[in-house]
Amino acid sequence: MTSARMDLNSDLGEGFGQWTLGDDDALLGVVTSANVACGFHAGDPVILRRVCDRAAAAGVAIGAQVGYRDLAGFGRRFVDVEPDALTQDVLYQVGALEAFARVAGTRVRYVKPHGALYNAIVTHEEQAAAVVRAVVDYDRTLPVLGLPGSAFLRLAADAGLRTVAEAFADRAYTPEGTLVSRRLPGAVLTDADEITRRCVAMATGGEVRDVDGGLLRLAPDSICVHGDTPGAVDIARRVRSALTDAGVDLAPFAA
Amino acid sequence: MTSARMDLNSDLGEGFGQWTLGDDDALLGVVTSANVACGFHAGDPVILRRVCDRAAAAGVAIGAQVGYRDLAGFGRRFVDVEPDALTQDVLYQVGALEAFARVAGTRVRYVKPHGALYNAIVTHEEQAAAVVRAVVDYDRTLPVLGLPGSAFLRLAADAGLRTVAEAFADRAYTPEGTLVSRRLPGAVLTDADEITRRCVAMATGGEVRDVDGGLLRLAPDSICVHGDTPGAVDIARRVRSALTDAGVDLAPFAA
Amino acid sequence: MTSARMDLNSDLGEGFGQWTLGDDDALLGVVTSANVACGFHAGDPVILRRVCDRAAAAGVAIGAQVGYRDLAGFGRRFVDVEPDALTQDVLYQVGALEAFARVAGTRVRYVKPHGALYNAIVTHEEQAAAVVRAVVDYDRTLPVLGLPGSAFLRLAADAGLRTVAEAFADRAYTPEGTLVSRRLPGAVLTDADEITRRCVAMATGGEVRDVDGGLLRLAPDSICVHGDTPGAVDIARRVRSALTDAGVDLAPFAA
Amino acid sequence: MTSARMDLNSDLGEGFGQWTLGDDDALLGVVTSANVACGFHAGDPVILRRVCDRAAAAGVAIGAQVGYRDLAGFGRRFVDVEPDALTQDVLYQVGALEAFARVAGTRVRYVKPHGALYNAIVTHEEQAAAVVRAVVDYDRTLPVLGLPGSAFLRLAADAGLRTVAEAFADRAYTPEGTLVSRRLPGAVLTDADEITRRCVAMATGGEVRDVDGGLLRLAPDSICVHGDTPGAVDIARRVRSALTDAGVDLAPFAA
Repeated sequence: MTSARMDLNSDLGEGFGQWTLGDDDALLGVVTSANVACGFHAGDPVILRRVCDRAAAAGVAIGAQVGYRDLAGFGRRFVDVEPDALTQDVLYQVGALEAFARVAGTRVRYVKPHGALYNAIVTHEEQAAAVVRAVVDYDRTLPVLGLPGSAFLRLAADAGLRTVAEAFADRAYTPEGTLVSRRLPGAVLTDADEITRRCVAMATGGEVRDVDGGLLRLAPDSICVHGDTPGAVDIARRVRSALTDAGVDLAPFAA
Repeated sequence: MTSARMDLNSDLGEGFGQWTLGDDDALLGVVTSANVACGFHAGDPVILRRVCDRAAAAGVAIGAQVGYRDLAGFGRRFVDVEPDALTQDVLYQVGALEAFARVAGTRVRYVKPHGALYNAIVTHEEQAAAVVRAVVDYDRTLPVLGLPGSAFLRLAADAGLRTVAEAFADRAYTPEGTLVSRRLPGAVLTDADEITRRCVAMATGGEVRDVDGGLLRLAPDSICVHGDTPGAVDIARRVRSALTDAGVDLAPFAA
Repeated sequence: MTSARMDLNSDLGEGFGQWTLGDDDALLGVVTSANVACGFHAGDPVILRRVCDRAAAAGVAIGAQVGYRDLAGFGRRFVDVEPDALTQDVLYQVGALEAFARVAGTRVRYVKPHGALYNAIVTHEEQAAAVVRAVVDYDRTLPVLGLPGSAFLRLAADAGLRTVAEAFADRAYTPEGTLVSRRLPGAVLTDADEITRRCVAMATGGEVRDVDGGLLRLAPDSICVHGDTPGAVDIARRVRSALTDAGVDLAPFAA
Repeated sequence: MTSARMDLNSDLGEGFGQWTLGDDDALLGVVTSANVACGFHAGDPVILRRVCDRAAAAGVAIGAQVGYRDLAGFGRRFVDVEPDALTQDVLYQVGALEAFARVAGTRVRYVKPHGALYNAIVTHEEQAAAVVRAVVDYDRTLPVLGLPGSAFLRLAADAGLRTVAEAFADRAYTPEGTLVSRRLPGAVLTDADEITRRCVAMATGGEVRDVDGGLLRLAPDSICVHGDTPGAVDIARRVRSALTDAGVDLAPFAA
């Protein structure tokens, strides 16, 4: 019998200047992959340095959380950037983060789009291709983390990139395996026991209930947990414990 | 007989978004080293990509023109950044530029502080040390370009970095070899013939007149020319021609 | 016989920091209404002060050129801002400009959305309503300048605002009176004689040729001229001369 | 017997986008004057709208908390802005806030410089004069709030502005009545009882202990309390209660 293996990813380094968001130190004790904001929608050089140093020390893989250039909107508003400009915006962010990863003795291990960009490139072919092009231009060996079934992962795979599919610990799924819109009731799960059970199922080849009550087999390479509230960090800790208790080996998908 | 050798450096990539400044393409036909703005006081990802691609194609060395985070002030206003934050600000900028240099098939070859930061670290020990620390942290083999006699170059040398001393093609010097303040008359030279003669003298071991009429031997490793006006580009071209005619081999100091 | 009357508007104050765009001083000798950028997509406080002082001295009406918060994109990229946030963004910009208008002894006389916002609110009802709400909240007597037939002008009229319809001096129109898309050939006119003739026709109740060769009667309250190139300023001057020669009284629509 | 009267001021609206700082709602139940950040070092249009609406509803006077253009540094780093540019930066911020104050049915009632600007203009004559000039240009009836003995208040008084002297609830004073530097031990008071007693003494004509143990009569027009931590809000509440219990009438200095 082979033991199951799973990656836990979360957003880190999302403060800016005097402002903080989430508890980076707590999350670094929970996750195996840190999606580090790179300064366009959140994050500043002091934060990048600190998060990269600590992630490296904790053996947590550093990923580039790339987004639209929109500090005021936290990257949560779609911006109709021209594809070529988007490619360069992504390259800029990955490069900036890379400096801190290297100083910390490691490297940027993957790229994960953030917020409105993440959502846009589920279907926006031009922007999806623009992000893919940035990764191809930068380093063809760098995996991308995203939503299964998205234009982004499809185009990335077409371009020869390694794609890493993620599932969300606290989101409901349709019978087709897509996310239930946040605008609908029940889209976001809040019961810690239920979230934990679902994560163990996902990580061990089991099935979870979809929003209609049917059974759905998600087979993610990584599970995304949140850490922007104290309650969220606590749930993330429980997910980690439950996975460990179930014999799942927690490790970065990229190292 | 050994032939003289000289580097010509200039600021490039100093536009932002819709705004342009200087004639990057013209300068890439003149200089051997391009100080590329990295986005904190000027420059954006689209510009960085374009300048790096063209510099690489032209065999012009790419240097990181790092400055204070101050787009509105173009990096020309002293900002009392804490040294640790300044170190990270410099790392961020160098890393961002590095992404584009690598995509263009080359690397960032040196670091040159810009504007108010350049001037501050002539004497500001803490900020000078902060910039040095960034380069040491990033890559100890990266040379720094700056003003001879500055705290910056002294601390960089103390830290084991290669220091590259520059002279200005169009600035008057005191008998002690320091720059005449821009507030004084005669600080900036405008006569193309005089500028050209001085550059040839600097590059061939000769002497130039100081502001008091005495003779001064500057022995720069690089000469800084400007390109922010059509007239300036024309003077830069004449400097290059005159150096070539005098048998000076024009080549980047770092490659 | 009553003399015709027309307003000429143009974008001013679109530099930022060290960067300039267009020739504000030249345009102030041509136009009767200045759409002054307010700092979100272009413009900074020093520029706002200078443009307002000079516009006031020249008797040119000051309008708020409001846009998305996107300096890197010059306001030319659609941003999916939530309507409430857009309302506050517009209020902020109008208020900032108002300070300079008042110091110059005058007031903000109208509001004109810029770039991607201008285009979005031709059809985007929520964002159009958000801009209208900002003007209603700020000052119900302030006219808005925009595209005839747009959701923006319709909703503004519904809200009781004075609407001012503009035509473009250098754009081709469809038989229906809408703008020919910039992506199609012939969308932008460049012949100075043709542009001038069309402007005189527009201002004197005459007809212009649409893109299919038919006749179209545009009856704008204001004609928009451009000034971002030396050629554009020259054309704007010729438009003004031709209108004056045709007996058209040039005056701001709002004073 | 006339009752004593005192103003309590505090910084509000210091979040940005997704990031919050301090508890604006709690403070609006404590203070009589709100120093509202205007977007250059903190604050965004959505926050400005909300704070102005609530301050107006609560009868709290709105003041412009103006600072350097430095979001990454929260306005806490000295920036060597040219005086003319600083004047326009202040005008811009006051104007932007004014829009929201007017929409809320009130007006900007005073100007208080923030952070590094506050500290700089204690002694920096040119920058102090630049801020004064902005207020004079904008509205000569607008009071300025600042440190007694500062160049700023002196120049403001010379220019005919009403000056409002503030004392800090939680700062130690030298025998000369200046603030003990934050770098020295004992500079910041943390004992709630002591802070409360001192505030009552200040507000009722009494004396407080200076850092050397002597007696010092501060006669502020306003007392500055902090609200950036839950503990700070609690202390501010206790200061208010103690002043009320002592018969001090709490009211804005400007209305």
